[in-house]
Amino acid sequence: MASAQPNKNPTPPQARGEAFASAVLDAALTQLAEVGFERLSIPQVADIAGVNKTSIYRRWPSKADLVRDALAIPLSHANEAPNTGALRTDLIALASTVASFMQSRVGTALIRVMLAEGGNPEVRALANAAYSEAGKHGPWIVIQRAIERDEFNGDVDPSLMLFTIAGAIMHRVFVENRDAPEEFLMQIVDLVLYGAAAKR
Amino acid sequence: MASAQPNKNPTPPQARGEAFASAVLDAALTQLAEVGFERLSIPQVADIAGVNKTSIYRRWPSKADLVRDALAIPLSHANEAPNTGALRTDLIALASTVASFMQSRVGTALIRVMLAEGGNPEVRALANAAYSEAGKHGPWIVIQRAIERDEFNGDVDPSLMLFTIAGAIMHRVFVENRDAPEEFLMQIVDLVLYGAAAKR
Repeated sequence: MASAQPNKNPTPPQARGEAFASAVLDAALTQLAEVGFERLSIPQVADIAGVNKTSIYRRWPSKADLVRDALAIPLSHANEAPNTGALRTDLIALASTVASFMQSRVGTALIRVMLAEGGNPEVRALANAAYSEAGKHGPWIVIQRAIERDEFNGDVDPSLMLFTIAGAIMHRVFVENRDAPEEFLMQIVDLVLYGAAAKR
Repeated sequence: MASAQPNKNPTPPQARGEAFASAVLDAALTQLAEVGFERLSIPQVADIAGVNKTSIYRRWPSKADLVRDALAIPLSHANEAPNTGALRTDLIALASTVASFMQSRVGTALIRVMLAEGGNPEVRALANAAYSEAGKHGPWIVIQRAIERDEFNGDVDPSLMLFTIAGAIMHRVFVENRDAPEEFLMQIVDLVLYGAAAKR
């Protein structure tokens, strides 16, 4: 039976659904950064987001499903491929994105949690999935373009170069507890680029 | 008044003191790896070591004092300088020490805890002190010998090289969750060495 009542809520259902998802994923990310995966609870996420926990379970049947989607948000920008015209400046731009994320409040907290709880196989699977998804496109497009421009011969495994740059930034921020300014990023990129270009 | 009783305990006091310290520091290290710094408690360490908590407080007035001494044990081997006759093989030996530690049960747990609790200023100070103490001698002796042999001109900051190698291993073990076998260590050392040797 069709209702004769006028529509009191002019928001279309899809927009309501997006606002709901965004509130829940934001709350999940905040909780993850604050208490970690093991102590994260869906009822508490529901409280923070101001929604009903049943509606969260309907969309994300498990905590892992929720955290997987929440992690995709801060990591999505890592998939943008800078296009400055040269490998060196592209790599510095990528390094700068990584460094900004690692030094952001949520980035620092997320990396700490993922590292701290890496002994939990579920956390490990989530971290691996998030990380490989995040680095899937941008860095490889940058390397591919450099090979096409004949700037890089690909003799050295590109993942060795990229992971060494990421590791050096991680060591700087999380072990040395120091900032990673542009000058530092340039030194790391140069060390790796000259190393990759050298005749073996 | 001198006692006429024969000495029932033939262990000299110094050896007893060392056995006590070793039991307490071992217990502190195990607890640190298991529950982290914030949740580590001296009464519980006393229980595990089978000693009286008062005797722990007498020697280590605070938890930070105890943890500082406990951390010095697993990190002390990082101070040995390999002497293979060439910078490349010395660096591979150092990288191998770092990789073995990061992949050991206690090493993995300690690094996880230090990274996870790096937001706590007390943990940060302890981690910085332990880390700078651990890397103070070995790696720098290796670099110094290479400069004396004219194998390395020192144009590139040695700490940039050493920390990049350590960061790449950390990324491999803690982010990629993969082993760091000899072949990988050789690739990293070569990347960094060729990079440092290249004409800028």
